Amino acid sequence: MIHVVDPDFEKRLGEVGDRITVAIDQLIPPASGPEAQLMRAMRHGALGQGKRLRPFIAIEVGRMFGAQEKSLLRAAAALECVHAYSLIHDDLPCMDDDDIRRGQPTVHKAFDEATAVLAGDALLTLAFEIMASPETHRDAVMRCRLIERMAAAAGPRGMVGGQMIDMNPETGAEEPLQVLTRMQRLKTGAMISFAGEVGALLGGAQEHERQAIAGYTNDLGLAFQIVDDLLDVEGDAETLGKAVDKDREAGKVNFVTLLGVEGAQGQVRFLAAQAKQHLASFGNRATSLLQTVDFVLNRRH
Amino acid sequence: MIHVVDPDFEKRLGEVGDRITVAIDQLIPPASGPEAQLMRAMRHGALGQGKRLRPFIAIEVGRMFGAQEKSLLRAAAALECVHAYSLIHDDLPCMDDDDIRRGQPTVHKAFDEATAVLAGDALLTLAFEIMASPETHRDAVMRCRLIERMAAAAGPRGMVGGQMIDMNPETGAEEPLQVLTRMQRLKTGAMISFAGEVGALLGGAQEHERQAIAGYTNDLGLAFQIVDDLLDVEGDAETLGKAVDKDREAGKVNFVTLLGVEGAQGQVRFLAAQAKQHLASFGNRATSLLQTVDFVLNRRH
Repeated sequence: MIHVVDPDFEKRLGEVGDRITVAIDQLIPPASGPEAQLMRAMRHGALGQGKRLRPFIAIEVGRMFGAQEKSLLRAAAALECVHAYSLIHDDLPCMDDDDIRRGQPTVHKAFDEATAVLAGDALLTLAFEIMASPETHRDAVMRCRLIERMAAAAGPRGMVGGQMIDMNPETGAEEPLQVLTRMQRLKTGAMISFAGEVGALLGGAQEHERQAIAGYTNDLGLAFQIVDDLLDVEGDAETLGKAVDKDREAGKVNFVTLLGVEGAQGQVRFLAAQAKQHLASFGNRATSLLQTVDFVLNRRH
Repeated sequence: MIHVVDPDFEKRLGEVGDRITVAIDQLIPPASGPEAQLMRAMRHGALGQGKRLRPFIAIEVGRMFGAQEKSLLRAAAALECVHAYSLIHDDLPCMDDDDIRRGQPTVHKAFDEATAVLAGDALLTLAFEIMASPETHRDAVMRCRLIERMAAAAGPRGMVGGQMIDMNPETGAEEPLQVLTRMQRLKTGAMISFAGEVGALLGGAQEHERQAIAGYTNDLGLAFQIVDDLLDVEGDAETLGKAVDKDREAGKVNFVTLLGVEGAQGQVRFLAAQAKQHLASFGNRATSLLQTVDFVLNRRH
């Protein structure tokens, strides 16, 4: 990939990431009482060196539509709690069995399996508590809409359903590429799309604007996953902060095993161009979101 | 225990239980697509032969205050989804490692561990989706309040925190009975109290009425837990539908190991009387809630 990421963009991404980290730290209860280990495990899982891509998308889309910063920050923190919970549970021995995440021991390695299950449960629950609070938005109708959409994106016909397919797909008559595409759309696509929705809803975007954002996040989410599969083959464990070539070793299909390296790279380029095209009508206001596409293409971890 | 449970009460409890089962069955998505196993596991975990005590409390309290039946049923179904998720995760090998629940194989035995983690996650997420929907109540402020209270009752300073204490308590300077009481209050008490709140909120109860209900559910929840500990010692596995004397074998303290059998029985009688006293001002309207106390005292599983 030949795109170059603007250093100002990386700074902007880092600033949003830092604000999200601070916000989540404040929203997780203090580690006190006989249940204190739970809060320590929640922090371990949620305050690591993540890219904070989903909250960044939520906040940048929201800024484009003039949403209030405080609402954006809290809603973005809630969705990042959902993402953090999903990583903790996906890393469990009974799931992907990963010991390292973002260069740190996964929660079940730093603590134990029971604590990891509970820390994930608690972060998911906290996400809904954050979203429902009047501090997130003055209008309860808006809060309920965000909660309904978040639950749909994270639930059985969203992220959790995608992880179920990843674990034990019932293929029936469907082609492997069909199953894989559905898996990706649910497992990673749904929450990336929800990030865009958060910004669009809080910014009061018009229907055609919401559709443009949905098209953008849809393409970006799929590109993100294919890059992930390419990194699984091409990356090295040190840069990536996690084990590589896991899919091939596990005998799993992914976009690279199905399309080949060149086919997958071509698909990423196509999706990137299409994602940017969805933003054409926003002109310069979408600069940061356009750069996000390049960032996703260039990522090395 | 010498109380006799009214057969009409058992019928009423059974009817509410059946309605809850039907409602949850309709709210879980159909088992279709390559993620179908997830929905089957959700049904396995949520549609078993539970007592449906929490939704029953929610509905009976709500009826006493004249709440709408449809709102009560949906909110009660949501809270039962939270309860079902907690049982699925508590039964996992890394937690209580139970193979049997309500006389049936637990979800991780009927399916596998990964599916059990995901089915629990999905039921928790679904619970919030149900609560946030305009079908549950026309007023979004009410829906958000229910969601905030549900998240607080289920989260790190509620049910999940209680399970953390049960797994790995940090005792510090606290007495064992203090830690145990906090564990119970969080692990089982918080959601039983939330059940009462659901009915009181949806029924528009006054502040003093809400406090009376809170006192009632607080005592009932603690009595419920002590009876549980007594059954763990006195019960037999066949009636109970699960393994017995697990706490002693695991070297755990519970109310019976700390208070003795007679001490625990005395505490249950005291709490039962106190729970009923909280309902005195409601007169005959509280008959069903009074009978619930006797039901909890007489339960054999």
